[in-house]
Amino acid sequence: MMLILSTPAIQYNKGHLSVLNQQKLPLEEEWIDCSTPEDMVEMIQSLKVRGAPLIGIAALLALAQLVERGANRDSIIAAARLLRQSRPTAVNLAHSIDRVLKRLDEESDHFKAVLSCVKEIVQEDIALCEAMSAAGAKIIQKGENLLTYCNTGCLATVGTGTALGVIKEAHRQSKCIHVYACETRPLLQGGRLTAWELTNAKIPHTLICDNMAGYLMSLGKIDRVLVGADRIARNGDFANKIGTYSLAVLAHHHRIPFYVVAPYTTFDAGCPDGSHIVIEERCANEVRGVKGVLSQMIWSPADTPVYNPAFDVTPSSLVTAYIMDRGQLKKEELQTSFEKS
Amino acid sequence: MMLILSTPAIQYNKGHLSVLNQQKLPLEEEWIDCSTPEDMVEMIQSLKVRGAPLIGIAALLALAQLVERGANRDSIIAAARLLRQSRPTAVNLAHSIDRVLKRLDEESDHFKAVLSCVKEIVQEDIALCEAMSAAGAKIIQKGENLLTYCNTGCLATVGTGTALGVIKEAHRQSKCIHVYACETRPLLQGGRLTAWELTNAKIPHTLICDNMAGYLMSLGKIDRVLVGADRIARNGDFANKIGTYSLAVLAHHHRIPFYVVAPYTTFDAGCPDGSHIVIEERCANEVRGVKGVLSQMIWSPADTPVYNPAFDVTPSSLVTAYIMDRGQLKKEELQTSFEKS
Repeated sequence: MMLILSTPAIQYNKGHLSVLNQQKLPLEEEWIDCSTPEDMVEMIQSLKVRGAPLIGIAALLALAQLVERGANRDSIIAAARLLRQSRPTAVNLAHSIDRVLKRLDEESDHFKAVLSCVKEIVQEDIALCEAMSAAGAKIIQKGENLLTYCNTGCLATVGTGTALGVIKEAHRQSKCIHVYACETRPLLQGGRLTAWELTNAKIPHTLICDNMAGYLMSLGKIDRVLVGADRIARNGDFANKIGTYSLAVLAHHHRIPFYVVAPYTTFDAGCPDGSHIVIEERCANEVRGVKGVLSQMIWSPADTPVYNPAFDVTPSSLVTAYIMDRGQLKKEELQTSFEKS
Repeated sequence: MMLILSTPAIQYNKGHLSVLNQQKLPLEEEWIDCSTPEDMVEMIQSLKVRGAPLIGIAALLALAQLVERGANRDSIIAAARLLRQSRPTAVNLAHSIDRVLKRLDEESDHFKAVLSCVKEIVQEDIALCEAMSAAGAKIIQKGENLLTYCNTGCLATVGTGTALGVIKEAHRQSKCIHVYACETRPLLQGGRLTAWELTNAKIPHTLICDNMAGYLMSLGKIDRVLVGADRIARNGDFANKIGTYSLAVLAHHHRIPFYVVAPYTTFDAGCPDGSHIVIEERCANEVRGVKGVLSQMIWSPADTPVYNPAFDVTPSSLVTAYIMDRGQLKKEELQTSFEKS
């Protein structure tokens, strides 16, 4: 199987799978070969590959590789289950894997089942990004200052992205936007990855520390906030990168519209509200310093106790609207929209 | 002149002045000699010595040194003016220098004028810290979880500190408190200096990234927020480390009491409100990476545009009360209290 992907983050060609190590971006562009599902689990857990939609696809490509290398049905199912558990918070991973498992159930030719399903999901992800970008760009007015968080671009999906996809589309439509990118501690996906994407796309932008967003809002310098999501519950509560909740409260206080941009695969119909979302906690050294960006640097006392949740939950009451592949939805419309499909 | 200071940040003994380089803490305890007022200006601007009250004292000690080395009245006045301009936002520096200049005006013996005035202000600063600590500790209830920001301890004053002084006093009174310390990007005074002070003082604490504070509040894990201030305007608006404003909005949203702890020297009667406070902007590389902590590490694209205000302004409407050396004051009481004195 050959795949043409819009993302610069992953490559797949006839069983050869390689991943751009996002932990080293933008300082180094290191490609790492993936040979087994276990390799992919490690890459997902160490955030060499990250971004809710991209993780879902990366896991599928590891399955495709396994299939193309002649694995049998049982070992494919075992690998699928292993990959499904690699990170708990983003739902896209579980969604993708469940679709492949269902297809395997329906189709006796496991080679065909896996590869056709993976190809479908990849193409769908690209199309979802385009649909979100189009729906979101409509909302953005000329000359606006947009605030975004973490990385939600082509390093987080196999298409153009979610929130950053919208921003890139608005720029393509010559809306003269300017972007404030929050650096997103502790892993600095904003300072490293979003700044890299915005630089490459020549979109006017300014990098800020996360704690500066509120002050910018108070100065009237932010017109709109756009963030991605890792899991959206039935009532519209959503999990996203730690710090998203603070931005939502700050935007609410300043009456600045706050949008969640996500494909339907991020919606979890089985999750009634945010209190049911499992929040992953990560290791202390990520907060004691910077870990994984070329090298490690610790600036806090070595044994300082740390709290390091990777995500937080934002209640739907703080969300202006959800920009999804099927257009802009209010929180009341979320459940109905997904029941219909 | 000999001085016994409670701070581990600065030493003065008969014209010999040395400063603990706070840019290298806690990884290295490097002492730097200061020989001229120009040396001190550099140390203040590069944040080797920082903290609103401590800067005020450090500048005075540079003047004391100049006097003890035999400088004449004119060169003392010139040095005082130079030091006064080294950083714009904190008012304590201007206050201290103005007091020395006034004393020089009143007293013909400039040796005596400067040294007696410096000694007085140093002793006063230590006493102010004790008064604030006592006033603040009263408010803190047993078992509370306190959130603090930046560094406001014995590395920021010549006494025990402002907000962190209160926290240390509550701990000394066996109130079984636990502290959440925000790391305070970009210069990480929380992750480096407050974590170091809390570790040394054996106070139970947890270090978090600044963007985690809101989520902790939503989980009900913060009972009270205590911050310092660099300048308090007549109406109670105050400037403090960038990120303070966001914390104040978040505390307000969650109905968590939010206290400003500062000595009367931080009150600027000449400043009607926050809009008149000059906010210092600093260099871009502080945000593009970490600068000055042993070495420099840049993780963003090298030419990424950056916004880097060192402070923000929080309106008095978000402040529960001001804990000052003269006790707890409401914003309405601030001006009256200072008119009386």
